[in-house]
Amino acid sequence: MIIVVSPEATPDDLDHIVARVEQTGRQAHLSVGTERSIIGVIGPDDPSLQDAFEALPHVESVHRVTKPYKLVSRDFHPANTIVDVGHGVLVGDRELVVMAGPCSIETEEHIFDAARGVKAEGANVLRGGAFKPRSSPYAFRGIGVDGLRHLAAAGAETGMPVITELMSVRDIDAVCRYADIIQIGARNMQNFILLDEVGKMKKPVMLKRALSGQIEEWLLAAEYIMAQGNPHVILCERGIRTFETAYRNTFDVNAIPLVKELSHLPVIGDPSHGTGKAGLVTPVAMAAVAAGADGLMIEVHNDPEHALSDGAQSLTYERFGGMMRSVAAVAAAVERTLTGVRTPVAAR
Amino acid sequence: MIIVVSPEATPDDLDHIVARVEQTGRQAHLSVGTERSIIGVIGPDDPSLQDAFEALPHVESVHRVTKPYKLVSRDFHPANTIVDVGHGVLVGDRELVVMAGPCSIETEEHIFDAARGVKAEGANVLRGGAFKPRSSPYAFRGIGVDGLRHLAAAGAETGMPVITELMSVRDIDAVCRYADIIQIGARNMQNFILLDEVGKMKKPVMLKRALSGQIEEWLLAAEYIMAQGNPHVILCERGIRTFETAYRNTFDVNAIPLVKELSHLPVIGDPSHGTGKAGLVTPVAMAAVAAGADGLMIEVHNDPEHALSDGAQSLTYERFGGMMRSVAAVAAAVERTLTGVRTPVAAR
Amino acid sequence: MIIVVSPEATPDDLDHIVARVEQTGRQAHLSVGTERSIIGVIGPDDPSLQDAFEALPHVESVHRVTKPYKLVSRDFHPANTIVDVGHGVLVGDRELVVMAGPCSIETEEHIFDAARGVKAEGANVLRGGAFKPRSSPYAFRGIGVDGLRHLAAAGAETGMPVITELMSVRDIDAVCRYADIIQIGARNMQNFILLDEVGKMKKPVMLKRALSGQIEEWLLAAEYIMAQGNPHVILCERGIRTFETAYRNTFDVNAIPLVKELSHLPVIGDPSHGTGKAGLVTPVAMAAVAAGADGLMIEVHNDPEHALSDGAQSLTYERFGGMMRSVAAVAAAVERTLTGVRTPVAAR
Amino acid sequence: MIIVVSPEATPDDLDHIVARVEQTGRQAHLSVGTERSIIGVIGPDDPSLQDAFEALPHVESVHRVTKPYKLVSRDFHPANTIVDVGHGVLVGDRELVVMAGPCSIETEEHIFDAARGVKAEGANVLRGGAFKPRSSPYAFRGIGVDGLRHLAAAGAETGMPVITELMSVRDIDAVCRYADIIQIGARNMQNFILLDEVGKMKKPVMLKRALSGQIEEWLLAAEYIMAQGNPHVILCERGIRTFETAYRNTFDVNAIPLVKELSHLPVIGDPSHGTGKAGLVTPVAMAAVAAGADGLMIEVHNDPEHALSDGAQSLTYERFGGMMRSVAAVAAAVERTLTGVRTPVAAR
Repeated sequence: MIIVVSPEATPDDLDHIVARVEQTGRQAHLSVGTERSIIGVIGPDDPSLQDAFEALPHVESVHRVTKPYKLVSRDFHPANTIVDVGHGVLVGDRELVVMAGPCSIETEEHIFDAARGVKAEGANVLRGGAFKPRSSPYAFRGIGVDGLRHLAAAGAETGMPVITELMSVRDIDAVCRYADIIQIGARNMQNFILLDEVGKMKKPVMLKRALSGQIEEWLLAAEYIMAQGNPHVILCERGIRTFETAYRNTFDVNAIPLVKELSHLPVIGDPSHGTGKAGLVTPVAMAAVAAGADGLMIEVHNDPEHALSDGAQSLTYERFGGMMRSVAAVAAAVERTLTGVRTPVAAR
Repeated sequence: MIIVVSPEATPDDLDHIVARVEQTGRQAHLSVGTERSIIGVIGPDDPSLQDAFEALPHVESVHRVTKPYKLVSRDFHPANTIVDVGHGVLVGDRELVVMAGPCSIETEEHIFDAARGVKAEGANVLRGGAFKPRSSPYAFRGIGVDGLRHLAAAGAETGMPVITELMSVRDIDAVCRYADIIQIGARNMQNFILLDEVGKMKKPVMLKRALSGQIEEWLLAAEYIMAQGNPHVILCERGIRTFETAYRNTFDVNAIPLVKELSHLPVIGDPSHGTGKAGLVTPVAMAAVAAGADGLMIEVHNDPEHALSDGAQSLTYERFGGMMRSVAAVAAAVERTLTGVRTPVAAR
Repeated sequence: MIIVVSPEATPDDLDHIVARVEQTGRQAHLSVGTERSIIGVIGPDDPSLQDAFEALPHVESVHRVTKPYKLVSRDFHPANTIVDVGHGVLVGDRELVVMAGPCSIETEEHIFDAARGVKAEGANVLRGGAFKPRSSPYAFRGIGVDGLRHLAAAGAETGMPVITELMSVRDIDAVCRYADIIQIGARNMQNFILLDEVGKMKKPVMLKRALSGQIEEWLLAAEYIMAQGNPHVILCERGIRTFETAYRNTFDVNAIPLVKELSHLPVIGDPSHGTGKAGLVTPVAMAAVAAGADGLMIEVHNDPEHALSDGAQSLTYERFGGMMRSVAAVAAAVERTLTGVRTPVAAR
Repeated sequence: MIIVVSPEATPDDLDHIVARVEQTGRQAHLSVGTERSIIGVIGPDDPSLQDAFEALPHVESVHRVTKPYKLVSRDFHPANTIVDVGHGVLVGDRELVVMAGPCSIETEEHIFDAARGVKAEGANVLRGGAFKPRSSPYAFRGIGVDGLRHLAAAGAETGMPVITELMSVRDIDAVCRYADIIQIGARNMQNFILLDEVGKMKKPVMLKRALSGQIEEWLLAAEYIMAQGNPHVILCERGIRTFETAYRNTFDVNAIPLVKELSHLPVIGDPSHGTGKAGLVTPVAMAAVAAGADGLMIEVHNDPEHALSDGAQSLTYERFGGMMRSVAAVAAAVERTLTGVRTPVAAR
């Protein structure tokens, strides 16, 4: 950490700051400048100290020079992490992972139909929500444990691992019983108790970035999970909240290469939430893969205009198939593969 | 709801949209325009339908014309709600409420000292964190149930109700046992399970706005609590996340009069988090009261440079006393009172 | 400036960085750490160098430790600047300045009526737009030089200095001829050629903050004006663009005390643009004054529903009078004055 | 336009609103609802009226249902516009356009070297700044007309059209004399006088999106240019300002497909400004092309660590060559071409 001291500080003020640093068991390295003096803090970094040092008289600013996360950092673990999510699917490997399915599991029949529909177009993980976070208490909130059961059965039938959102510690046993990947939603990115608890599990966890989550906060949230002993963490960029109102969220494509530079964890792109508009999903999916994403999460529904949630951003099976063909072409350009994509009838 | 249809829709397309509306049990009122046709949806509002209608072919946009919340709305309950938080303190009444104390409860002695310190300057509610949400898993996370016990004892000794944050359903019994007001923090504003659960309690709940929480989402989060039967809800504006990096958060003063116009619930301003800088707390506290806030939440610490968290934004007792005198002057200008503020020695 | 070097830098890499620093005529002070090495740059600050140093191999980050502006800084000029805008009005003094009038000057009669209307309620500067920046090329763009002439005449008749927006170097002579204060609008905050040109004038300039202008950029824009020799600069906070859609802009009340701490220049609050809703103007005006603003800019129109622009945020004369009485009460609480405010009939 | 009226409006209030609508020469179509009444406004759209209608008593909200721009709209001109920028380069055609060169033109030799360097790697337009917008008045601001002359000569020698920024009406003749494409920078997106003036020229104009420019505002700014008679408009997405501090700007990849859906104008991606970090330029360039961009604008410098501006985001020639090969692979996947890209020695 570097402490910048304002020009009016007296030698006594500087001594006081140095003493406070030394009190924390660290060394202080003082450079007195003509305008500002600078104190380098040497010793283990502790983000809590930034605030304490900023509270010292005459301190203008405190700059951290080390990253506050360790386990998720590429410095600590240079090779890419590959997360085995079951049924032979590896997240972070050369083959792209495509998690597809409906926003909400509506009925048993509905999720079986969706599983077959997305599998036929080349998806390799089945998604579906049983517990739904909804802005309004009066909106449909999912069918709960029944949904989990149907999801697991549909995944088993089609040979795909399944992913579903865990909203609360309350449901952790049920979700772990049925899901292959636990999803932590954007609104829970900093639900620290929930992060601790999934950190104690052995299951893969996919952590979505919060609507206003900074990259550093997102990586620290992943650090919470890893610090409890669970190394199977997948990150998911799903759009951030900005001033733009033309789309529900702004997909932050910069985040993909930056996170892959800072961390060894795999990163998935979610253009369905990242745009909120079905018409933008395909080009943004292609962009995510071009930028280095290890896979995609896509909302697909057999009948979007009757979907109980997120209809406006859901693709039909046919449109999803078109997207897969476009993504496969980009995948090849970036030396990734996407097998199992169906060639359209006309092209056979 | 109003559905705007694009110019290229055929009469059949319009029929299809009308049929979909009627299928939901609502009436459709079609106005065919030269450029765009417009379909008014008549019947009970359901926010989930917006998405389903947006998924219909040729629909350009869907506008909601009613507010999605009911119980929190001033239309529904025109008079101001006054929340009795115990020890004779009423939130939303003519007398301003000032919740003050340390970010974290550090030791028993520390919170007793703080309670006496803030009480002497005119605070009427004691705040202190026992469970702390921290960005880093390696930061100090509070002393837990011991802290709750010390907080309650310090409140009892000084005759003040106490407020503390509940981070998880896991701790609800402990927090309800010791706290007079349950605080839901900004990061949990959309932790819907937690909102449901505090909605089942009888205790007053103070709901902080999320870092990127829109006014409508914030009021819907309050609706979650009221929909479960708990009417004792207090809102707290604590700053939003913007592009500006000169302060930790941007205190959104517009929110105060707007929320008081839309809702009957009392609103507290938190300039400590709303600025993140001790030097800005007093003027922003004054602004909040001038704009109509029903009270303030302020971080106060006997020794900010040794605080275990949030030192940079904490006031000393003396500085807090100065703030209280400044706020009392503004309170008088807006026909509110702030009794118990100590006249400085020089002025006696 | 402080250069933080990543752990993998070799001694040769460090030498290369030190040599680059020395090449700029500055001294480099190297502290080799166990994790990261740090190079302090000693010598005159030049913001352009930050970018050049960031381009050096193995440089992780470059931190500036001095402020990039000088003339606008309170370090450089500790006393408050008071700007004399004519007709005895001083901006930045104990008496608050209230600039009021219509968004656009519509006709000669209209601006004379407005001048008398706002003067009667206690305004001391007349505002009115002759050249209007409008998002759409098809919207009303002002009546130009005729408007300037009417504005000046209305100011002369009522004994008030007048302020109007200058949009382009093209109109500088006309605006300088008629206006007492030149307004630089939010969209031109970083129109650097325009800033240079008004810097060469002797007239007071009011510089509005851009929709996404950071405090530092805003102060640097003021520095442009002062660097050309014009010290008569007034700043105006008019709301920033955020994710919130419930109001047109978010009035950034934090900016007022921070700018007054960093700079000696006076600061005006504009709650009309800062909210975009007539119903929020009064409470936000009160908040601005409570936070330390030196005055207000308010849109007032005799008939808002027929205004050619900004009707939704304009106050009628009567409503403006009510606002003035509320603001006067807050002014007294912060030891400012607002003379000339009319007591309502009922209260006489 | 649709006017939503609040429940407390009386029949007289409704009549008043209807009368005000009719006064504007439009028809009002009233639907009285149980909760809210709705008035459809039938007749030509005028964005200025939204504000006037919002000022009417009891009006809750006014929704526009038509787009405020015409000439730039795909409804008006369904086929893609292709802009001929000279030397056989067409922007918006199947062949991607890559505009590359230094941020600032430093010397004659420097821009000639850059022109040859980027041409060798496959660039087809030469960029270089002669007039530089800089946040600080003390930063290097370009070498002016000399720079324009060197730029034009370098373009002529290498057979490439040249693009440079026009900052002010003052320099319009000089810039038009030497440049093939006039660039309007992000800070001038809403410099409406400048837009009018370039609209009177015959030269192609590239309009960058403002830091906080909404899509609709950006298209309206393009409408300003087209409304004056200049149809040769190219749009450029260069990153927006968000809460994220890990990069200078957030490249908004969603904007590319959305703008291409709404408008017939070509769209260029600028990942240099869109990220601010050389290490992110290549993946974000690839993403832009995958999402449908018609080309790229890239900052390239022979020696970034000595660049007079934007060193941190500039690529060396070699790194630019690598980017071009990666982009060419993506281009092929989206059925675009990028000819002239050099195969690396090793691969020959």
